[in-house]
Amino acid sequence: MRILVVGASGTIGKEICNVLAHHDLIRAGRNGLDVSVDHTSVQSIKDMYSKVGKVDAVISAAGGANFASISELTPEINERGIESKLKGQINLVLLGLDYVNDGGSFTLTTGVMMDDPIRFGASAAMANGGVRSFVKASAIEMPRGIRINSVSPNIVQESWDRLEQYFIGFTPVPASRVALAYRKSVEGAQTGQNYEVY
Amino acid sequence: MRILVVGASGTIGKEICNVLAHHDLIRAGRNGLDVSVDHTSVQSIKDMYSKVGKVDAVISAAGGANFASISELTPEINERGIESKLKGQINLVLLGLDYVNDGGSFTLTTGVMMDDPIRFGASAAMANGGVRSFVKASAIEMPRGIRINSVSPNIVQESWDRLEQYFIGFTPVPASRVALAYRKSVEGAQTGQNYEVY
Ligand SMILES: NC(=O)c1ccc[n+]([C@@H]2O[C@H](COP(=O)([O-])OP(=O)(O)OC[C@H]3O[C@@H](n4cnc5c(N)ncnc54)[C@H](OP(=O)(O)O)[C@@H]3O)[C@@H](O)[C@H]2O)c1
Ligand SMILES: NC(=O)c1ccc[n+]([C@@H]2O[C@H](COP(=O)([O-])OP(=O)(O)OC[C@H]3O[C@@H](n4cnc5c(N)ncnc54)[C@H](OP(=O)(O)O)[C@@H]3O)[C@@H](O)[C@H]2O)c1
Repeated sequence: MRILVVGASGTIGKEICNVLAHHDLIRAGRNGLDVSVDHTSVQSIKDMYSKVGKVDAVISAAGGANFASISELTPEINERGIESKLKGQINLVLLGLDYVNDGGSFTLTTGVMMDDPIRFGASAAMANGGVRSFVKASAIEMPRGIRINSVSPNIVQESWDRLEQYFIGFTPVPASRVALAYRKSVEGAQTGQNYEVY
Repeated sequence: MRILVVGASGTIGKEICNVLAHHDLIRAGRNGLDVSVDHTSVQSIKDMYSKVGKVDAVISAAGGANFASISELTPEINERGIESKLKGQINLVLLGLDYVNDGGSFTLTTGVMMDDPIRFGASAAMANGGVRSFVKASAIEMPRGIRINSVSPNIVQESWDRLEQYFIGFTPVPASRVALAYRKSVEGAQTGQNYEVY
């Protein structure tokens, strides 16, 4: 399969590329190895798709949100979660539909913070929850047999040193295990799922 | 209690005002009976709160999203769900925190489309899911004993004639029953809940 991986150079994206190495991968990101894209810009997403052309699967393992306590969170600070993690990922679907072959798939990324909340995590949880519900709802009317799922990673071992203070009491999972859920989404037949890798 | 109801003139908002009539209600909306606000504007929300002053509860029963099939949904059409149903409601919380008395509450509105998807509903589902996860996550760090919940209405009987075509096979519920969940949120002690009135 020809697979576009947005966020291919990231902690999770690298492992996704490893576990899907038997496919033809197109690695994207702001400094993408194969194609560059800023998913917070509609024009940049359009440009990427017109360069890349038809694919069998689109994976998004990019998208951030700011950490802030609820007392410090402002509409402005919340914008990164809206623009990047939420709209960035959803616009990859809305603008990519015509580039995905019949029977292809989209796989987006959510995260454990919506199910097992942590301090400073409300903005990320909001974005994750929006992506999960979009996936579930859009799955029922995807055209041409196209499927859509999301993967919800727990905090990964590779990010533990940096993020441990926020995730006290969590059991980190290897990014390689998270990556398997993306493979399940791409090579499997399910749709509308949010694969929890907790 | 002194309760600010945004969307007080709406189908559901009217029933909320009925069921909470024993309180001191401040009815808000773009053409609000007591105070006007456009929740898609940060400045308008700020102006409303500075006019209204301290309250014991904020209820949001406003917020819309466009109906469009996934093939027709564009980033631009999706913006109404982002700006109104999602950010409009969340910004009422972020900008309202300082106006809510100790032990007070916020109650937002989600909806059944995130749990039981329908055609044309992906944008609304996205917004609903974002609000639900924001509520769950923000609840754990609300200051001064402030609580936050959301109510997820099924399609209501009062909207059935207009919306039946989209909700084939659903069993509509009376808006008065939906309104009870807002009362439970305001007068009860729970937090972080999404009350499903299905
Ligand atoms: N790490 C964890 O423990 C964890 C846990 C749960 C969920 N997640 C989620 O998993 C996803 C990936 O996390 P990660 O830790 O692997 O992230 P990461 O290491 O920071 O990598 C981010 C990747 O996304 C790309 N990227 C960043 N901004 C972009 C933009 N505006 N447009 C396009 N691409 C962009 C980056 O490449 P460039 O720099 O070249 O743009 C990079 O490839 C995120 O959504 C994160 O919230 C992570
Ligand atoms: N009706 C249903 O069957 C149903 C089912 C599930 C969920 N819901 C959700 O429940 C909520 C209320 O639905 P509804 O049917 O009662 O709506 P509605 O009858 O259309 O009433 C909407 C209310 O919100 C106010 N409003 C609209 N835009 C606003 C804005 N930009 N800023 C501030 N206030 C605004 C309106 O007053 P003004 O015109 O004066 O602004 C009105 O009071 C919505 O979030 C809806 O998605 C409804």
